[in-house]
Amino acid sequence: MSPGQDLRIGIAGLGRLGRRHAENLLRRVPGATLVAACSPLENELTWAGQTLGISHLYPDYESMLAHEGLDAVFLVTPTSLHAGQIIEALRSGKHVFCEKPLSLDLDDCRRVNAEAALHPQLKVMIGFVRRFDASYQDAYEKIRSGSIGRPFMVYSQTCDQYDPDGFFVKFAPSSGGIFLDCSVHDIDLARWLLGNPKPVRVFASGTIAIHQELQACRDVDNGVAICEFENGCIATFYASRTMPHGHETVTEITGTAGRLTVGRNPRRNRLEIADAAGIRNACTANFFERFEAAFLTEAIYFVDAIRRRRRLSLTLDDAMEATRIGIALRESLQSKLPSAL
Amino acid sequence: MSPGQDLRIGIAGLGRLGRRHAENLLRRVPGATLVAACSPLENELTWAGQTLGISHLYPDYESMLAHEGLDAVFLVTPTSLHAGQIIEALRSGKHVFCEKPLSLDLDDCRRVNAEAALHPQLKVMIGFVRRFDASYQDAYEKIRSGSIGRPFMVYSQTCDQYDPDGFFVKFAPSSGGIFLDCSVHDIDLARWLLGNPKPVRVFASGTIAIHQELQACRDVDNGVAICEFENGCIATFYASRTMPHGHETVTEITGTAGRLTVGRNPRRNRLEIADAAGIRNACTANFFERFEAAFLTEAIYFVDAIRRRRRLSLTLDDAMEATRIGIALRESLQSKLPSAL
Amino acid sequence: MSPGQDLRIGIAGLGRLGRRHAENLLRRVPGATLVAACSPLENELTWAGQTLGISHLYPDYESMLAHEGLDAVFLVTPTSLHAGQIIEALRSGKHVFCEKPLSLDLDDCRRVNAEAALHPQLKVMIGFVRRFDASYQDAYEKIRSGSIGRPFMVYSQTCDQYDPDGFFVKFAPSSGGIFLDCSVHDIDLARWLLGNPKPVRVFASGTIAIHQELQACRDVDNGVAICEFENGCIATFYASRTMPHGHETVTEITGTAGRLTVGRNPRRNRLEIADAAGIRNACTANFFERFEAAFLTEAIYFVDAIRRRRRLSLTLDDAMEATRIGIALRESLQSKLPSAL
Amino acid sequence: MSPGQDLRIGIAGLGRLGRRHAENLLRRVPGATLVAACSPLENELTWAGQTLGISHLYPDYESMLAHEGLDAVFLVTPTSLHAGQIIEALRSGKHVFCEKPLSLDLDDCRRVNAEAALHPQLKVMIGFVRRFDASYQDAYEKIRSGSIGRPFMVYSQTCDQYDPDGFFVKFAPSSGGIFLDCSVHDIDLARWLLGNPKPVRVFASGTIAIHQELQACRDVDNGVAICEFENGCIATFYASRTMPHGHETVTEITGTAGRLTVGRNPRRNRLEIADAAGIRNACTANFFERFEAAFLTEAIYFVDAIRRRRRLSLTLDDAMEATRIGIALRESLQSKLPSAL
Repeated sequence: MSPGQDLRIGIAGLGRLGRRHAENLLRRVPGATLVAACSPLENELTWAGQTLGISHLYPDYESMLAHEGLDAVFLVTPTSLHAGQIIEALRSGKHVFCEKPLSLDLDDCRRVNAEAALHPQLKVMIGFVRRFDASYQDAYEKIRSGSIGRPFMVYSQTCDQYDPDGFFVKFAPSSGGIFLDCSVHDIDLARWLLGNPKPVRVFASGTIAIHQELQACRDVDNGVAICEFENGCIATFYASRTMPHGHETVTEITGTAGRLTVGRNPRRNRLEIADAAGIRNACTANFFERFEAAFLTEAIYFVDAIRRRRRLSLTLDDAMEATRIGIALRESLQSKLPSAL
Repeated sequence: MSPGQDLRIGIAGLGRLGRRHAENLLRRVPGATLVAACSPLENELTWAGQTLGISHLYPDYESMLAHEGLDAVFLVTPTSLHAGQIIEALRSGKHVFCEKPLSLDLDDCRRVNAEAALHPQLKVMIGFVRRFDASYQDAYEKIRSGSIGRPFMVYSQTCDQYDPDGFFVKFAPSSGGIFLDCSVHDIDLARWLLGNPKPVRVFASGTIAIHQELQACRDVDNGVAICEFENGCIATFYASRTMPHGHETVTEITGTAGRLTVGRNPRRNRLEIADAAGIRNACTANFFERFEAAFLTEAIYFVDAIRRRRRLSLTLDDAMEATRIGIALRESLQSKLPSAL
Repeated sequence: MSPGQDLRIGIAGLGRLGRRHAENLLRRVPGATLVAACSPLENELTWAGQTLGISHLYPDYESMLAHEGLDAVFLVTPTSLHAGQIIEALRSGKHVFCEKPLSLDLDDCRRVNAEAALHPQLKVMIGFVRRFDASYQDAYEKIRSGSIGRPFMVYSQTCDQYDPDGFFVKFAPSSGGIFLDCSVHDIDLARWLLGNPKPVRVFASGTIAIHQELQACRDVDNGVAICEFENGCIATFYASRTMPHGHETVTEITGTAGRLTVGRNPRRNRLEIADAAGIRNACTANFFERFEAAFLTEAIYFVDAIRRRRRLSLTLDDAMEATRIGIALRESLQSKLPSAL
Repeated sequence: MSPGQDLRIGIAGLGRLGRRHAENLLRRVPGATLVAACSPLENELTWAGQTLGISHLYPDYESMLAHEGLDAVFLVTPTSLHAGQIIEALRSGKHVFCEKPLSLDLDDCRRVNAEAALHPQLKVMIGFVRRFDASYQDAYEKIRSGSIGRPFMVYSQTCDQYDPDGFFVKFAPSSGGIFLDCSVHDIDLARWLLGNPKPVRVFASGTIAIHQELQACRDVDNGVAICEFENGCIATFYASRTMPHGHETVTEITGTAGRLTVGRNPRRNRLEIADAAGIRNACTANFFERFEAAFLTEAIYFVDAIRRRRRLSLTLDDAMEATRIGIALRESLQSKLPSAL
């Protein structure tokens, strides 16, 4: 890629979130050209060809990596494939954007990290999309500018609306559990907003409110946790699969001089309804709706960083740390003891 | 009444609001003793005797005025009686608290004013209760302290919840119409918050959304109006009898450096409900619920002003001016022309 | 243009809003290709060439209209040019999107309407952008589905943040006054949400709170108005240039069974700040920020309607009616009398 | 006390909260007569005599207990005295209202319980005032009526505004620590709202954000905790002494079909301020302001229950359980291990 030239990108995985990324890359990300896509699913490739007009469609990842002139890949594939696919991409000389989490396995994380160290000219970023949300960005800037004094406490929750079809239950056995699947975002936000303190200990608890099937994989549908950091900072997490009203991601950062709250009352839009039931607003249905703009900002940031050769603020170490804490939370949930880190 | 002694009060009228006043005077107003009550209704007197334990009960107002040692009266009687009863009380040497409005008739207002001028040692106050609400008090103090710069615009609404029984319709013929019955509060608030500017012109409009019976008395169940003041200030009013969600009194005061809003989203309490319909709160059902505390503050203020011989900040001129503007609004509604003041 | 082919668009005017439209057309509107731009200003053309990469740049509108294969124009030019430019475009066989208002002059509106009637195959749409905002769309659908019963009352305000530079004052002499410049949006919303009732009478008032220079053109910086419709519906408008906290567009629609409110508390994002001053949120600074997404939705709608040969729901009659009511408001403000329509 | 007669009450302790109780009992609690007061502080007794007009003033508790005809006592004394004073009162045949917490010591709680069992005709209630707040009452009724399905998760916080004088620090050594002093309310609320499930295990953590002096008594100024119940219910607590914006008591109860939140954004009143900083509201400064009405409701409830011989819904067992869990939280904070219950 010569300076000023568009980044030629191939995308792997065209499920719901993959399609969102593909549409963004196709039209809305300056300096990006979506040149190729791969998927093992015929219908996904057909969609990419017909709806998006992508001409280079591959049934497997390796073929796409070999695509002439490809600069970067976007991985929106099952978590179990992430580490291997990132390493392959790096070895093929491609930049990598990969959906969160990096991996459910710490050794995998370490292997990715080691491989990346061998390719300092290539960028790898894991999609902790909330960092790119305008409200979280605003919070981050306010903290940096000192407007809440010294931050010392984070409360962060990822609560999904109850799905009567229990769609997520199918993926529960391979999701790593509620903390690695949902709270991993909150873990990353807490670290980012508190200035990357070193975690020392976690304690987790949880309950099954509705989805009894989760017992089989020792998971819960509502989990709470406390994470202690070396400098005295504390983070509390809540993750739920059973919210009645919508998807509600909330993060509260308390400092010695102020407190910031992101996302309380996840208003769907600017409409308020008054009727016999009182005054109400509808809520965002899911993380797609809540973070729609942030997925675009994230892609723009990643592409721009590559083209302008800027250092990424979101690193592989961040991603590995989120996995490490998430694993500790799951262990604490299952052992019923605090886990040291 | 010698200093330090309790003010001996008689109350006339024991309807819904009268009972509220009576209960406040009985227990909650320092320096007040409720010694007598009068009502033409047997059951109201029985209630006063049995529930409140008032021993001096009179079937007519004149007898109560003659009660030995009475210092003051509270008039919670039909508006058409106000002027006459105030004048009688003044001639009997009693202080007078009277529910709003002073009268629907300007000549009556003038007669009351003239009589009051003959008794400078007696206090007369009309119950514009909203001035005594903690939020309105807060707004008033902030304006006085300059925090919104120069106030120049008021929006104020009095919106009652829709009553399927159409209770108010029965009283519509004698209520003076929606502007004199409801907006008279907003008129008083606008004058008070804007620093008593001289009104010069009004324009009003209205519609019947539901209660077609109002046509008979040329009234409406939803009315809007604009009032211009000499100094360029403007007030806009909205009154409604058909709100779906509750009683909603809102006042917005805009100044050159800030804006204050009182009462938007009339939350019933501090509870918020999240369910499949979104996030909501219940609303105050009526003005009783909304201004419960203010009725008490008002009575405490009135009694205290008499006992400490302090000048009332809410005067008969204020009450007359509210009636004068209210009449002009009704005239404009019916003539379909602006009314000069 | 054959079906399936992209609509080739030329844009006239590359000021602040013109650039926004150009960027949307360039990348984000499916089925659109921005092929040309015109502006009398050298620097605007330079920007279009260098930043957007548009190769066909014209110093005058007529030359751009002659551009080979052009299908449609976007007019983001001074209001005084609208009518003439629309007529020219129609005569050249182009579809037209034109920023609001259509014109400040009713005869101009009629001439445009007459010309459009001669070209039934061409589409003309005036940019009443708020109709395309997600929250207003939601309100409109809820009203259509009957969720508030019969709507009968609208309150709508367009309030701009106070600009210490008084930028708008320069344009005041040619803006048509506050009602034609700002309230024209509210007028259109009221008609749309109430189901296009026939207006019969308006009354307006206003005041200069800060910008005394407006006296010269008989304009005000804060205006209120009432508009009566034939079916008994009423709309109340408020427009301001002096809001302390941000741009606040609010519309409230009251029906017999519910009330919808769009835009109350114009939160900038999802961040809430708690500190010694209480709990607060920042507000949207201007209409760009508030309606950013709606400008895109509007362009997508327009281009899609042309390509799929669908009837526009927003018509020239709507635009003319908004101008007609806006003129009546200005007349009432200046004559101090109600204006019949 | 014969039926229909007023309950004759003596109050012990006339500090800030004691005075509030005394004023309520004097004027606002039907069926109560405040006949006596005791305090070791001369100035408190003087205030009770002069301001409240109480004629029977005692320098010590025992003398007051001996007051002829006394029916009940209100104890607003230091926590260390509660158990002894309650036992004395019971032995003297008095009903007892005592401020929370019952005691910091479980044996004390047990002794009180045992003594109370010997006097089944006497009522003892510990002042968990939040149960009597209108919003909490509303939440409780909604849960009972099934409107949120099965409740399984509580988040409850008691956060005091930062006091630059560090007033509370002086009492820290005898307060029992932040969980027994503040969270004891949240513990009681969680049990009440979840239907009194049996607690099985707690985990607590905390940090000193500002008040380093707390290290001396092994206390913290910000604490978080998780409490697990036998039936799978979970409660999370947060207590803080360092809030920047005011006193914020929040309780969130999540069920399988809905979620209730009490107290989020502790608005001081109904006023909202818009200015260059955005839109904001002031917050309640302290628990007095927040729970002013609930202190009265609580006293009315207690007096009424005695006069009508009704069973108290808030029992000594509830109070002991709150202390027991609070102690376990403190132990977990200090041991850094989960505490079994």
